[in-house]
Amino acid sequence: MTLKEFQKKLKDNAIKAFLVTHDNMFLGQDILESENKILELTGFTGSAGILLVTPSKAWLLVDGRYAIQARLETDPKKITVIESKSFTVDVVVLCVKYKISTLCYNPWCISVSDVNFYAPKITLKPVENILPCTIVPPAKVYQHALKYTQLSAKEKCETVAKSLLQGADALLICAADDVSWLCNLRSVLLPYTPVLRAYALLNRQGGIQLFADDVKGFGIILPMKALPKVLEKYKGKTVLYNADTTPQKMLDMVQGINFKRLFFNTLLDMKASKNKTELKGYRDAHLEDGIAVTKFLYWLHQQKGKVSELDVVKKLHEFRASRKLFVSESFATIAAAGAHAAIVHYQPTEETNIPLKKNSVLLLDSGGQYLNGTTDVTRTIAIGEPSKQMINDFTLVLKAHLRLISAVFPENTSGQALDTLARSVLWQEGKDYSHGTGHGVGHFLNVHEGPFGMKVRTTSHIKADYVTSVEPGYYLENKYGIRIENLVYSVPAKQKGFLKFENLTLIPIDKTLINPYLLSVGERDALNNYHQRVWHCLAPYMDKNEAKWLKAACSPL
Amino acid sequence: MTLKEFQKKLKDNAIKAFLVTHDNMFLGQDILESENKILELTGFTGSAGILLVTPSKAWLLVDGRYAIQARLETDPKKITVIESKSFTVDVVVLCVKYKISTLCYNPWCISVSDVNFYAPKITLKPVENILPCTIVPPAKVYQHALKYTQLSAKEKCETVAKSLLQGADALLICAADDVSWLCNLRSVLLPYTPVLRAYALLNRQGGIQLFADDVKGFGIILPMKALPKVLEKYKGKTVLYNADTTPQKMLDMVQGINFKRLFFNTLLDMKASKNKTELKGYRDAHLEDGIAVTKFLYWLHQQKGKVSELDVVKKLHEFRASRKLFVSESFATIAAAGAHAAIVHYQPTEETNIPLKKNSVLLLDSGGQYLNGTTDVTRTIAIGEPSKQMINDFTLVLKAHLRLISAVFPENTSGQALDTLARSVLWQEGKDYSHGTGHGVGHFLNVHEGPFGMKVRTTSHIKADYVTSVEPGYYLENKYGIRIENLVYSVPAKQKGFLKFENLTLIPIDKTLINPYLLSVGERDALNNYHQRVWHCLAPYMDKNEAKWLKAACSPL
Repeated sequence: MTLKEFQKKLKDNAIKAFLVTHDNMFLGQDILESENKILELTGFTGSAGILLVTPSKAWLLVDGRYAIQARLETDPKKITVIESKSFTVDVVVLCVKYKISTLCYNPWCISVSDVNFYAPKITLKPVENILPCTIVPPAKVYQHALKYTQLSAKEKCETVAKSLLQGADALLICAADDVSWLCNLRSVLLPYTPVLRAYALLNRQGGIQLFADDVKGFGIILPMKALPKVLEKYKGKTVLYNADTTPQKMLDMVQGINFKRLFFNTLLDMKASKNKTELKGYRDAHLEDGIAVTKFLYWLHQQKGKVSELDVVKKLHEFRASRKLFVSESFATIAAAGAHAAIVHYQPTEETNIPLKKNSVLLLDSGGQYLNGTTDVTRTIAIGEPSKQMINDFTLVLKAHLRLISAVFPENTSGQALDTLARSVLWQEGKDYSHGTGHGVGHFLNVHEGPFGMKVRTTSHIKADYVTSVEPGYYLENKYGIRIENLVYSVPAKQKGFLKFENLTLIPIDKTLINPYLLSVGERDALNNYHQRVWHCLAPYMDKNEAKWLKAACSPL
Repeated sequence: MTLKEFQKKLKDNAIKAFLVTHDNMFLGQDILESENKILELTGFTGSAGILLVTPSKAWLLVDGRYAIQARLETDPKKITVIESKSFTVDVVVLCVKYKISTLCYNPWCISVSDVNFYAPKITLKPVENILPCTIVPPAKVYQHALKYTQLSAKEKCETVAKSLLQGADALLICAADDVSWLCNLRSVLLPYTPVLRAYALLNRQGGIQLFADDVKGFGIILPMKALPKVLEKYKGKTVLYNADTTPQKMLDMVQGINFKRLFFNTLLDMKASKNKTELKGYRDAHLEDGIAVTKFLYWLHQQKGKVSELDVVKKLHEFRASRKLFVSESFATIAAAGAHAAIVHYQPTEETNIPLKKNSVLLLDSGGQYLNGTTDVTRTIAIGEPSKQMINDFTLVLKAHLRLISAVFPENTSGQALDTLARSVLWQEGKDYSHGTGHGVGHFLNVHEGPFGMKVRTTSHIKADYVTSVEPGYYLENKYGIRIENLVYSVPAKQKGFLKFENLTLIPIDKTLINPYLLSVGERDALNNYHQRVWHCLAPYMDKNEAKWLKAACSPL
């Protein structure tokens, strides 16, 4: 459907305004292109956004990562792109400004939280069929082996039930990654994310029922249409749910259930705090990933910049694909030359592909799904001789990166506070970046795993054994972009009640982009120690030429 | 009423649990001792807290500032003191833990926000008469002169009405300081805060009606009991309100009004962003305050520590009281010797008064209400020869103070991020402090002016011309306490879209407590520049001996 056709449909149905989310019924999860309504209506390919449509107007709200890209991909005559720090707030602002009094939405594709936010401010009206949500079934479903997970599905279900279901009869779980983690199930369908897309109902004894269409043979999997009938049995009983990941439709489907919003979510805590086996898996996966990316970096160095963005994507895939337990990339590789890097989340296509730009930097953000862990790393690499300004900006971003990586902070520090530690280094120079400083990372699950994140706006807090990215950046539109990203995990610091980070990523940081006079002694030491460890871990896997190059790349500043 | 009597009353009325807030009907504002229900029931004198009472148990929740003090002031056999980072969250936790299913409360003494937070989690029941809220009328009401406010009440009312009341019929204002600011009215009643305690209803044309008992002659002031009748006229109409400062009772009083929660509050923005006249007033008041406190510091120096905490309070008052436009202290002076300083908000009484402790530090937190501005300053002063540990901790707190004072940050940075800038300096050493880093300051109004604050948990954001305190600290229970506090205001930095702070406070920081080897070059320069300015501004007002002492106190490190 084109936007024009959709707007005609709105008019024909006397709908004054419709809110199109980026979600299907699995809120906040990765989706297929064919399921992406915003892509269908506007052409915008980004992984987040919200679209407000009236019969005559359309506003696409995107976060800072996509501000440039959304304008490039959409028709400015039809769609107004707005960079937004809070979609919900700005939807309300638009409704007030354009006197939209009633807002229609598909109740399958919006969370209870968001509905609760809008409800006191705008009149809402659920409309299911004007833009129905579509789900493609998985090609294959499989068990994730105990050697990677440590805990069996039964153990996880019983622990969660014991902790959450004392005063309630069931827990409704609508987030695909929560269900996949809890049941140790994965599927083949999405290109970068092995989650099984299913809903689940966990009872007080730890028994679980799954709901998914076209999936059979793993525990009790019922078709989605069985949901109302199963929920009927909970009339007069108490069912817990996560308001951020449960579609509003679930609360409206069956009347008479005492639905209670979860306040503390043990399941999310357990999923976020990685166990010993999972952490060992991450370390092993990062060694494999480090070998692959470092071999690629040597290869790139040999090319002397005479390759294209798509060559980079292809070659990097080859190096990764040969590593132990590799399954797929964890997201589409971002290989951005020259000004492309300022687009933050640029992914090259046949149409946009360009050769690497001489005397500039290449921004390379990529990761792998390994059976024992998920990786995500960004390196910014000198091509030829970058300018002094590029070097100073890279050094500034490195200082921000090292500030956070080396920080000591109390348990339960907010993601916002941790974000500030890195970001404030740029602020001091009057600079900033319009994306988060870090995101939680799933264990062979979503590379962006909520709810923990280090962002300007977040209510999440950190505990021990969380895996997160650390990725400050700096972007100059039409010029260049810089980002330095490692994955780390949180461990107890020597002072009681405090945490610090341990690096997972083992890949050298391009020293030719550093102005050493801008680093403090502590920063220089931190970088040198990191490089010493990279060299020590990777050297055994390098051939002679690679080793020679790596040794120099890791030598002290 | 004693706690025991109150618990009997609960039992007799079959009330399972009652939530006693620290508020009367003017939520979050200063109150008289005679109005303080928590003081009456428990003996706790602190300025914030919440008390959950059942017929057999009582829990007093206090923030970190009062954790020690609350335990000292209350009977542990009757009351469990809990240090809480979020009262509302911990009230829910207690209710879940102790299976409290219905919670009674006085709807005059709790905000709509808090009721909305509790409502989905606990069954709430309003009960007005079991613990009625009491209000003492003011001794005198007066106009705050235009030469201090720049804008007339009429101008303020019209601006607020124009900005907020496009789509609504009236704005209900229940916060005493909002009403006082809007109408340029003040009163004589509370010992430290000149607010007039009244509600207001602002209409679309900028007309305003005030509601207060026993006040006559300033605009249209009606008695409180007239409220329902006036509200009746708004049946079927839209009335805006601030959910954080409006008692739940107001929404329940008259049915059929379309009450709408304020989303953006222009009134709060205007009150927080001080105008030119107000800022000049703050600067003038801080010069007066700097003269008074610095003269006091010289006097204290002459006493060689041979005075008591109450002597300090009395003498400091004498110096302040002689200054131009001084009205009163802006809060009860905190003069804490030795281990008393670890109590964070200790105020000496005849019973607790001790002589200053030799070879330790005196923590002195005090401020003044001047007609042209409000001041608030903390200095930690060496008495004799403090230990090396005290000096290192003082230096650490100074580094945190200077980090924030010297910061550059984007407009609309959150109070939480600014808090982190200072606090993270202590984190790096595995240390922390259990109070906010700063609070907004009213203009001849509340010394703690919301909603802006720099705290671990806050949703407030900074704009230009905000006045705030910067006051990191460090406290070692039973040993000593350190805090360094200046007032500052936010001004544009040289980079577009960024802000920085300018100091208002002009009082030397005790250099004998600094280990200069722990300061960076930038930190040392910042301190020396500050001291140079203090010397330059204050010298003309010092006598010969004071000047000699001040010159040395302000000489470069």
